[in-house]
Amino acid sequence: MIELYTWTTPNGEKPVIMLEELGLDYEMALIDISTGVQKQAAFLELNPNGRIPAISDDGQRIFESGAILVHLAEKTGRFLAKSGSDRAEALSWTFFQVGGTGPMVGQLHHFRNAPEKIPYALKRYEDESRRLLGVLESRLQRNEWLAGDYSIADIMNWSWARSGLEAVEGWETFPMLAGWVKRIGARPAVIRALDKLQAAKAEL
Amino acid sequence: MIELYTWTTPNGEKPVIMLEELGLDYEMALIDISTGVQKQAAFLELNPNGRIPAISDDGQRIFESGAILVHLAEKTGRFLAKSGSDRAEALSWTFFQVGGTGPMVGQLHHFRNAPEKIPYALKRYEDESRRLLGVLESRLQRNEWLAGDYSIADIMNWSWARSGLEAVEGWETFPMLAGWVKRIGARPAVIRALDKLQAAKAEL
Repeated sequence: MIELYTWTTPNGEKPVIMLEELGLDYEMALIDISTGVQKQAAFLELNPNGRIPAISDDGQRIFESGAILVHLAEKTGRFLAKSGSDRAEALSWTFFQVGGTGPMVGQLHHFRNAPEKIPYALKRYEDESRRLLGVLESRLQRNEWLAGDYSIADIMNWSWARSGLEAVEGWETFPMLAGWVKRIGARPAVIRALDKLQAAKAEL
Repeated sequence: MIELYTWTTPNGEKPVIMLEELGLDYEMALIDISTGVQKQAAFLELNPNGRIPAISDDGQRIFESGAILVHLAEKTGRFLAKSGSDRAEALSWTFFQVGGTGPMVGQLHHFRNAPEKIPYALKRYEDESRRLLGVLESRLQRNEWLAGDYSIADIMNWSWARSGLEAVEGWETFPMLAGWVKRIGARPAVIRALDKLQAAKAEL
């Protein structure tokens, strides 16, 4: 049995979407990160970094959304090519998201909500977020999906691209990316995933 | 043939170390990122994000150090378990580095060198860097390596942990991490890798 520990954030959405795409059985527990429960000893056994998402798959912990999606893809043989160009591209674009749009759009949100208004930091993360969204836009001008067929690279990048487009008001500036965000957002599994997260949150 | 495009930065060191550990034939080209050559069209074909490192393996591009190390591990069957707990842990700790110490220690360096001194940002990234180093310290209190035997998780985390320990003057505060950094730094392949990078840079 797969137990998923997550929350309604861009990183937290990814494994829910993946599990819904795969149609696997899983139990989802929401970890309200505003309470700090993710920093307590019980959760640190699942993820020593004290962050969501994390899963337990028949007792094996896996933390970090990228590791979870690679694990689930390899477990099922879906959404990540086993070898060749599509695998190389999917891994490259997966790590691009984890080291790029995730932390940079994340810092932009942080400084937008920070107690001090720091123009230097706001400009730094707005510029870098726009630059990274532009990298995705260029890729999608020549490719329907980021790496061959729809893959974990698309699922990984989707929620942070959406968050980035909202943060920089970039829906018209990055038309191919905006279309790709809407196309993925219309997939039944993605709709189910976001609905399940919202329904679970409403029950708390 | 593997062609490696890299530079003398923490991310740039990782694939050189991995290739030296594997004993693979490769050609290394230094990309002096201070010149902006990595943003030019020829390099963007290798990495559309315009950053080092990137490789071409018999014409297949792979960018992002994490993707490169997973690719090389899978190509050779070394330094990444094929399945099971060691693979799950190695992937988790690999993504931990890419989404955690890399960007956060990176931001700390940026704000240390920024034209403005911004106490809020300096404190933010010092605190977060220390927290992340503490996560590694805890892991290494109970494990010789991050994920089973010495693996890509160790190679990925090594250069950023070293950079982080230097940045926060944390060598005495994180003794197990400091010992692990020194242990890896003494490996013949790691010594060869750093020597090759310095020698190539001196020839520019």
